[in-house]
Amino acid sequence: MKVFFKPTNRSSKAGSKENLLEVATRADVHINASCGGQGTCGKCKVLVEDGKVKTKSTGNLTNKEIANGYVLACQSEVVTDLVVDVPLESELISKGRTKINTLVSSNDYIEKQLRGLSVNPLVVKKYVELDPPSLADSVSDQVRLQRALRPHLQGRKLSFSNTSLRQLAKVVRQGDWKVTASLFLEDGVYRLIKTEVGDTSNEHYAFALDLGTTTCVLKLVDLVSKKVIAEASAYNGQISCGEDVISRMVYAKKGNGLEILQHRATETIDKLIRRVLRRAKITAEKVSLLVVAGNTVMTHLLFGISPEHIRETPYIPVFRFPPVVIGKEIGLNQAADVRVVAFPCVASYLGGDITSGIVASDLLSGRELSLYIDIGTNGEIVLGNSEWLLGCSCSAGPAFEGAGVKDGVRSIDGAIERVIIEKDSYETVFETINSKMPVGICGSGLIDLLAEMFMAGVVDKRGKMNRDLGIDRIRKGDYGWEFVVAWGNVTAKGRDIVITEVDVDNLMRAKAAVYAGITTLVDSVGLKLSNIDQILIAGSFGNYIRIQEAVTIGLLPDLPAEKFKFVGNGSLLGSTKAAIDSGFLRRAEEISKNISYQELSADNKFMDRYVSALFLPHTNETLFPSVKSRQELQRVS
Amino acid sequence: MKVFFKPTNRSSKAGSKENLLEVATRADVHINASCGGQGTCGKCKVLVEDGKVKTKSTGNLTNKEIANGYVLACQSEVVTDLVVDVPLESELISKGRTKINTLVSSNDYIEKQLRGLSVNPLVVKKYVELDPPSLADSVSDQVRLQRALRPHLQGRKLSFSNTSLRQLAKVVRQGDWKVTASLFLEDGVYRLIKTEVGDTSNEHYAFALDLGTTTCVLKLVDLVSKKVIAEASAYNGQISCGEDVISRMVYAKKGNGLEILQHRATETIDKLIRRVLRRAKITAEKVSLLVVAGNTVMTHLLFGISPEHIRETPYIPVFRFPPVVIGKEIGLNQAADVRVVAFPCVASYLGGDITSGIVASDLLSGRELSLYIDIGTNGEIVLGNSEWLLGCSCSAGPAFEGAGVKDGVRSIDGAIERVIIEKDSYETVFETINSKMPVGICGSGLIDLLAEMFMAGVVDKRGKMNRDLGIDRIRKGDYGWEFVVAWGNVTAKGRDIVITEVDVDNLMRAKAAVYAGITTLVDSVGLKLSNIDQILIAGSFGNYIRIQEAVTIGLLPDLPAEKFKFVGNGSLLGSTKAAIDSGFLRRAEEISKNISYQELSADNKFMDRYVSALFLPHTNETLFPSVKSRQELQRVS
Repeated sequence: MKVFFKPTNRSSKAGSKENLLEVATRADVHINASCGGQGTCGKCKVLVEDGKVKTKSTGNLTNKEIANGYVLACQSEVVTDLVVDVPLESELISKGRTKINTLVSSNDYIEKQLRGLSVNPLVVKKYVELDPPSLADSVSDQVRLQRALRPHLQGRKLSFSNTSLRQLAKVVRQGDWKVTASLFLEDGVYRLIKTEVGDTSNEHYAFALDLGTTTCVLKLVDLVSKKVIAEASAYNGQISCGEDVISRMVYAKKGNGLEILQHRATETIDKLIRRVLRRAKITAEKVSLLVVAGNTVMTHLLFGISPEHIRETPYIPVFRFPPVVIGKEIGLNQAADVRVVAFPCVASYLGGDITSGIVASDLLSGRELSLYIDIGTNGEIVLGNSEWLLGCSCSAGPAFEGAGVKDGVRSIDGAIERVIIEKDSYETVFETINSKMPVGICGSGLIDLLAEMFMAGVVDKRGKMNRDLGIDRIRKGDYGWEFVVAWGNVTAKGRDIVITEVDVDNLMRAKAAVYAGITTLVDSVGLKLSNIDQILIAGSFGNYIRIQEAVTIGLLPDLPAEKFKFVGNGSLLGSTKAAIDSGFLRRAEEISKNISYQELSADNKFMDRYVSALFLPHTNETLFPSVKSRQELQRVS
Repeated sequence: MKVFFKPTNRSSKAGSKENLLEVATRADVHINASCGGQGTCGKCKVLVEDGKVKTKSTGNLTNKEIANGYVLACQSEVVTDLVVDVPLESELISKGRTKINTLVSSNDYIEKQLRGLSVNPLVVKKYVELDPPSLADSVSDQVRLQRALRPHLQGRKLSFSNTSLRQLAKVVRQGDWKVTASLFLEDGVYRLIKTEVGDTSNEHYAFALDLGTTTCVLKLVDLVSKKVIAEASAYNGQISCGEDVISRMVYAKKGNGLEILQHRATETIDKLIRRVLRRAKITAEKVSLLVVAGNTVMTHLLFGISPEHIRETPYIPVFRFPPVVIGKEIGLNQAADVRVVAFPCVASYLGGDITSGIVASDLLSGRELSLYIDIGTNGEIVLGNSEWLLGCSCSAGPAFEGAGVKDGVRSIDGAIERVIIEKDSYETVFETINSKMPVGICGSGLIDLLAEMFMAGVVDKRGKMNRDLGIDRIRKGDYGWEFVVAWGNVTAKGRDIVITEVDVDNLMRAKAAVYAGITTLVDSVGLKLSNIDQILIAGSFGNYIRIQEAVTIGLLPDLPAEKFKFVGNGSLLGSTKAAIDSGFLRRAEEISKNISYQELSADNKFMDRYVSALFLPHTNETLFPSVKSRQELQRVS
């Protein structure tokens, strides 16, 4: 029997009656199973899309999930060949993982922020009572509705879509001339998008989407209570077409690659929409708006617009301001009639995820100097305050995402996320996500590890292994010199987990690019790092970074810990806020127009700074006084 | 063999090798054949859609027509069962027919009017040269174009459709940053609808459509030279779903009737578009706008919006202002990307054809009192000047269109269009369209005939036949008393062509409704008929009416001949002018808002006036002094 796992597209052979959870593990598909396969926690829920399994227990699954084909992997035996979809919540990110930096991005904090917003969405619902028509007053349904809505329009024009006119006559009569109109504000004009029978103004919802290259997260927002009432996340279905934006752009150029990528994106969104609607028990017609934040390439692909020129110098995107479309125009089936609006981009590598994050955070609220950093494959950096903004993007490579590193993994269960190297013995102590047997090292673990290796003298400031230490853990392997983080007898796969000199090199390039980007921006306006009042770390990755370790390796500047704040998923926070208050979108437009974008790829000063930063923590040690003093302290102790 | 003729849906059996023109005549399908079947004039061109014919000669057909399946009916022998489409120009209106009232509606006059317009279409084309991008200037293609277009936008916002963004990157690069942008002005905002490589601002076209219940006429307008460069007309394909608006509305309510009617309309328009493009040798992409004028029901059906409530009291249309759509949204395939804008309606029975005609004529230019009349199944009447307007619609029935009259026909070849009844002998002298053997009597012929019958004493003022005249032509037939207009030995079908008392009754009801409408409007503002400074007769029917005869039967008020002016197809003229200058659409919107509409169906005064007008010319003869004096003159002579 063969079992194929989506969305990672991995497969494994399986014996008849074999346990599906075991097969998944063998295929390197890590399914969450908190209760250890007892069938009680319900976290190993998977969808059997094709084929048959024999299921012993469905504990913790809802009747609807069962009807839709979900089973518990730990309770299911393989009967035939299978195609199995592993929902993100079952696989990737352990719900048990504790964020270490939660100042700004905690759920309580976000809820409080949403509660404080004024309700001013792009689609408004207005309940009106029309005068019934008579021979003496025989104006059209359109003009009659217009008349009733006039007090709500603030002097704006009301325009009618063909769709809204098609259903108008029926609805006003069914509602006995009492209806609720949904109006979409575009270009200063209210467009009637639909009418509903009676007063439905209390049922008013929007979707907020973080359209990530890897992961998409969708929130269903109640625009009346200003609360998130359901949330779902999934891999971006484009992953099978390439892991990062560069490979997606390459794919888009081939044949009907662009179409396929657009379809994968909308398919993913449709899936998320189905889930949040099901969870909130709300029908799609109640939702009239989808606010999207994504990077420039993701946004282009969603609208079916070729991003090909983003790859080629001088890196030109097609648009800064995404078009406004109706769901079905871009292939959304679950939300065919929603208005889709997306956050504006600044440049090819500074997209709507960043403008969204900037308006969601308080970067612009005062005159203090702020630095906003989102670290991923690209490090997107914005410097400024309420009066001016400067932005850049530096290609850090995917090392912090676990790619390009021999034993790097995403932040899945069993990922080593914290490492200590003991003094003198050079033994390692590590923590894994959800305390599972280690499967590899994730981004935050890599930062920890590099910092510890440097502080312990396992690597020197050039990142070279200290071959003279004379310990087993430093050895020459198939990929050159390496340091053994975990011996095979304690790992999930039974083989050693290591970090090689090549891995260290990749990590140093990544951190050097980010640091050089920061200093280039600061320097270009004649300021110093010490002038920065706050550093906002965005991206879910930021929630798990230990600032001290990030400073030790020279990824982040050596500034007092209290200056660092954590935005979390700024892209998602911004789209959520903008769903409730369209003012956030307007401000993002202003920002996208006003950010001065620094193109680093041909900037010699950036290159010089980058080369200087290819050391631990830096060529110029005086830039990292706290690291120096900690090193000295360690030597003394 | 069986031959089926479209669009009249008539069929006839045919012998093998029988001549197609003869078969058509037998099926009552009147195909124009000016040269008498010699194959030289090319006017009997038909499209063989299914089946085979053997064709002797293709004289006067173009190679393209031949390739598309057109043959000359007179030169073709039936080989198999056939489906034949008879183009309107081959069948219905004889090109040879001479308009008698051409003051305003002559081609020369129209051409001169178009020449005098300022070019201000809803879609403008702007050629711009963009700065090529560089690392120092790496803004998006969108912002780059925006920058170049700014001087052309008069401070208006520029918005981008998804479609326009999809092709933008390719076009600006193919054009080496020199492109022509097509901008559509909507709600005060310019929307980019497409870009073209290089300078194409001289290739700028629009379609102007008269969407008639019976006939649709399409003009292709060159927006640079302000000239009509091609024209085509065809039956409205909805005819097979009902002849008039009432039967169409009934059809629309059944099953998917609404969809079918919309499809028939767009099919018809697509056919016309194909024809004008072929004739002008222009590709569809060069045309960016379609301006439509049609009555309220036709406009509703075109947009797929149910007109059902128009039929029921209090006669409420769905809209006054039609939605603006893109061709494909309503099912246009030939002009999938054109912006479709339609003239606004006033009321259920006062539609966009009238607002179009009013702005096209000079009804509003001065302070003189004008009366605008369009006579068809409904008589639409508007009274006013540049300061106020009053409108109504009266149901005249289809008598003037040849329906509801035993030997009534449309204005096809052989239709009797002019009749004189000789004094004393009561012999008739008649003229037929294109001097063909008579096939029936068309609208203008019916007015002539009724006037002559009245003046000659064949009917009395109540419309009753004078049984005492003792002439063969007055006799009792199968349908009651009748007057023989043409004896069978001189008619095309070999049988007598007559007019019955029932026919006379129908005609009198039609003319009474129109006259009562006119006087109701005039009276309601406290004016008299003599206050009217000009009467504008619209509708192609108007081109063939003899004013004196129309006054004689009491259809039109007894005013000096010089007060009558003829607008011709005002609906088409308005859409043509609006294609060139969008100001006409704006004025039509103003008009549609400001016309005070009088609903006559429940107006007792109208009913009284209608009853009083059910005489020849009227109960009150003093209203028609010229008729009285001519009658007296005749008696004396």
